[in-house]
Amino acid sequence: MNLFDRNETLKELGEFGLIERIAGLFEPDTDKDFTGIGDDCAVIKNDASYSTLITTDMLLEGRHFRREWSSAKDLGYKSLAVNLSDISAMGGKPRYALLSIGLPSDTDPNWLDGFFSEVARLCESYGVKLIGGDTAKSSSIIINYTVLGSIEHQNILWRSAAKPGDKIGLLGKVGEGGAGLRLLEESHSKEVPSHKDLIKSHNRPSIYVKEAVFLADSGIVHSMIDVSDGIQSDAGHIAKQSGVSLSIHTNTLPVSKQLIDVCDKFSWSVEEIALTAGEDYALMFTFDCEKEDTLKAKLQDSFPETDFTVIGKVTEGDADVRFFKNGEPFELHQHGFDQFKTA
Amino acid sequence: MNLFDRNETLKELGEFGLIERIAGLFEPDTDKDFTGIGDDCAVIKNDASYSTLITTDMLLEGRHFRREWSSAKDLGYKSLAVNLSDISAMGGKPRYALLSIGLPSDTDPNWLDGFFSEVARLCESYGVKLIGGDTAKSSSIIINYTVLGSIEHQNILWRSAAKPGDKIGLLGKVGEGGAGLRLLEESHSKEVPSHKDLIKSHNRPSIYVKEAVFLADSGIVHSMIDVSDGIQSDAGHIAKQSGVSLSIHTNTLPVSKQLIDVCDKFSWSVEEIALTAGEDYALMFTFDCEKEDTLKAKLQDSFPETDFTVIGKVTEGDADVRFFKNGEPFELHQHGFDQFKTA
Repeated sequence: MNLFDRNETLKELGEFGLIERIAGLFEPDTDKDFTGIGDDCAVIKNDASYSTLITTDMLLEGRHFRREWSSAKDLGYKSLAVNLSDISAMGGKPRYALLSIGLPSDTDPNWLDGFFSEVARLCESYGVKLIGGDTAKSSSIIINYTVLGSIEHQNILWRSAAKPGDKIGLLGKVGEGGAGLRLLEESHSKEVPSHKDLIKSHNRPSIYVKEAVFLADSGIVHSMIDVSDGIQSDAGHIAKQSGVSLSIHTNTLPVSKQLIDVCDKFSWSVEEIALTAGEDYALMFTFDCEKEDTLKAKLQDSFPETDFTVIGKVTEGDADVRFFKNGEPFELHQHGFDQFKTA
Repeated sequence: MNLFDRNETLKELGEFGLIERIAGLFEPDTDKDFTGIGDDCAVIKNDASYSTLITTDMLLEGRHFRREWSSAKDLGYKSLAVNLSDISAMGGKPRYALLSIGLPSDTDPNWLDGFFSEVARLCESYGVKLIGGDTAKSSSIIINYTVLGSIEHQNILWRSAAKPGDKIGLLGKVGEGGAGLRLLEESHSKEVPSHKDLIKSHNRPSIYVKEAVFLADSGIVHSMIDVSDGIQSDAGHIAKQSGVSLSIHTNTLPVSKQLIDVCDKFSWSVEEIALTAGEDYALMFTFDCEKEDTLKAKLQDSFPETDFTVIGKVTEGDADVRFFKNGEPFELHQHGFDQFKTA
């Protein structure tokens, strides 16, 4: 087998190259009762009506989090929340979680208390059951969740189901988590209120578990994703998998006053951060443009605290994503993040 | 919350203590449609008839494997095989796998080829589909599988279902994987044929996927476990969870000539290795003593190459495990392995 070119390093191949090669080994079956690699979750059909959604995610200390930046409780929250968000990204209700955790032998009992009590609290608040896991001794903390959700098969919001004519909606704000991370990375003061808010958004990102189920049930939404890799990258997944073009207007992006203030202060580009920094778990979805008012009214009614913004539209085209600012084409400088390609 | 005593380190608490505390946070529900922590797999009821079995397992380079001891293909085989074995341990048929993998950027493409091609081969040979996963850049290799299996609910072979009067059966040999590991740890020559065989058993342990489904369907078997932690420890799980006493006769243990030769040579105790070294994926089960001949004949008919041995019996008693050698009580010196308690 020659899955990998003998002279091609993982650094050259990159994350998406690696996943593509692995996926190629496991050809999609015809007459299948499951859908594998390629969306936020894998999907297993249970019967004619219901499916199980399943996602898994590995978080490594020093790479995905640092104990000096995030408390044990924050990590307990975030590590599970980002996995629940993957179930939400397809419209499902999270039901069960399994947690594999690698821990140093000298891990502070206070840390264990904080981490696991927050995992338990989050499970409780969304009706998720922790049903299994594994433990290993390791030199740094390793957290691997697998989360299962359920959904009526016909309600699944696939990345591949955006339609020309759809509008693009967003639930939640963008840019805050990414800006919070950048503040931490650049060692800016954590005591300034706007900094504090953004860092909190990084450590405790909002997720939209109930809203996602509502959107899937609404019959108005066609496709969905969470923007954990940034709008640019995640809109690209929808464009590619649906074979459509997405136009996004940067003036409409839901950004907080805190983000604007901090971007002003450090001369960061609000658009670059809002579109590429990732670390947000806002839900981006495409929906029937004729139902915009209905959707808006229903969301306002059921989730008055949750921001809903229309940020663009879907057209026939070349599976690409175009950005506009003040009506003019807008070029992004940042181009996604590939963990294997960076130092 | 005071999940952990403030002065109690993870090293003092140990692996089983940690799991017990975590499990305590997630009290079993009444009127439940799932069974969580406490067996080889978690069980989720799909409907009145069928259940999903699910297991997850974290393997760390340097702790669970070393690249200098195991080839990429061996690791591809073993990392998945041990998870399939967890599904087998409850009688299920493995169906789907998810793989989270942490890799250094400079991982040799030959290693990736060997690892993934062997994962694909093993999936193919047991009809398992790799449907998802995650990748992360890490300083050493981290492998986390989640495997899902299916089974008729009434056929599940729980650890808690052993009955007084049952006989104890074993499919496969014991001690080889543990002895192979010890040969590697003590840097004995890999070129001696008996060493080679045992090291191969360590790197490519036999698993009993089809046999397990057969046993679950037979109606003769009551409880089952795989002996990956060693017969002593795993028989203890059955004894404790079933509230019975297990008597095991060491003279009957299925051990290979190679194991006996190597134990002779290095003055190792065959019994200690066969009962405590773990690293074997033989299936240990308790079954209706009146059906022994039927079971033996059916196994011989369907799986003529697989060793089936009766190693003891189940009696009413104090949830303990007793060993006998030449009819006399036999005391073991080794007492299980706890990763957090060892250096």
